[in-house]
Amino acid sequence: MAHIDVPEGVPGIRSLAMFRPETGKPLYELAQVLLRGESPLSEAERELIAAYVSKRNDTLFCMMSHAAASRELYGDDKNIVDEVLKDMHHSPVSSKMKALLNIAGKVQVLGKEVSEEDIETARKHGADDREIHDTVLIAASFCMFNRYVDGLASFTPTDPAEYEAMGKRMAEKGYTAPPAPKGE
Amino acid sequence: MAHIDVPEGVPGIRSLAMFRPETGKPLYELAQVLLRGESPLSEAERELIAAYVSKRNDTLFCMMSHAAASRELYGDDKNIVDEVLKDMHHSPVSSKMKALLNIAGKVQVLGKEVSEEDIETARKHGADDREIHDTVLIAASFCMFNRYVDGLASFTPTDPAEYEAMGKRMAEKGYTAPPAPKGE
Repeated sequence: MAHIDVPEGVPGIRSLAMFRPETGKPLYELAQVLLRGESPLSEAERELIAAYVSKRNDTLFCMMSHAAASRELYGDDKNIVDEVLKDMHHSPVSSKMKALLNIAGKVQVLGKEVSEEDIETARKHGADDREIHDTVLIAASFCMFNRYVDGLASFTPTDPAEYEAMGKRMAEKGYTAPPAPKGE
Repeated sequence: MAHIDVPEGVPGIRSLAMFRPETGKPLYELAQVLLRGESPLSEAERELIAAYVSKRNDTLFCMMSHAAASRELYGDDKNIVDEVLKDMHHSPVSSKMKALLNIAGKVQVLGKEVSEEDIETARKHGADDREIHDTVLIAASFCMFNRYVDGLASFTPTDPAEYEAMGKRMAEKGYTAPPAPKGE
């Protein structure tokens, strides 16, 4: 059960945005612009960074849902997602993507862990300022979303089929804050 | 020097919001609603939670600026801020505030560190759902802001007088995203 009185049976951050719509609005807007707005990184890649960081933060809800969204967006290449989550360094993503995931992993530990060398490696493999920026902010924002969801012990479904359906919705419709509960 | 090409001499997150105004907008809106919007926690208390978490994440820019804002908002009680940053458990804040800062400290480590017992202790000292929610989200969001600022090595002023002026502005005017650079 969640640590605070949120709508029952509503999973993850959605229940928290219903509890506090004022903060839910900018949080969903941030997710939408970061993961669906214009970026040199594909939507599938951005969802993969989100799932990768969520796994490192041990947040099952965000890891399962964003992995499902990334699989849906990768389409025929959907196995990439599980390969990265199993062993990023030996996965079939590009050297540029590995260098960006390496930066995301450093951000997950702490901002100062990202070294000049990490940045140079990413540039050497073709990453530009915008890709580095978006990678760092996606990683940083999931360090927030993960802590928000777990810190309040919000509801985490365990049925993989539920996440598959969630991933399809996230891939197709993106991120929109839930309506405020009636009577408020 | 920052890892990416942001406006020179502009400190912290402001330079990053100028580099990428689309994400700057929801980030500043989140800070404004969380730290200045309606809440059972005072603005001084919320800024103190932000400074406390930023110190634990070793992010000088956010720690110095939000500590300065909190001092400004505490007014005559401004010594509270330095007492908490030095040794929270022996500081002169209320038992409720200590229990909330303890939760914020757990969130800084990882969401799942927050235990039923931590929540019960906060409730015993009078904290309600909204106070617990806002504490967790402020702590979680500064785990993002801190990583964003440090992960891109944005400019961190070192002159305490600069932070004092910044804290006054933050206390008086709150958080508004900088205008997008000209020509964009």
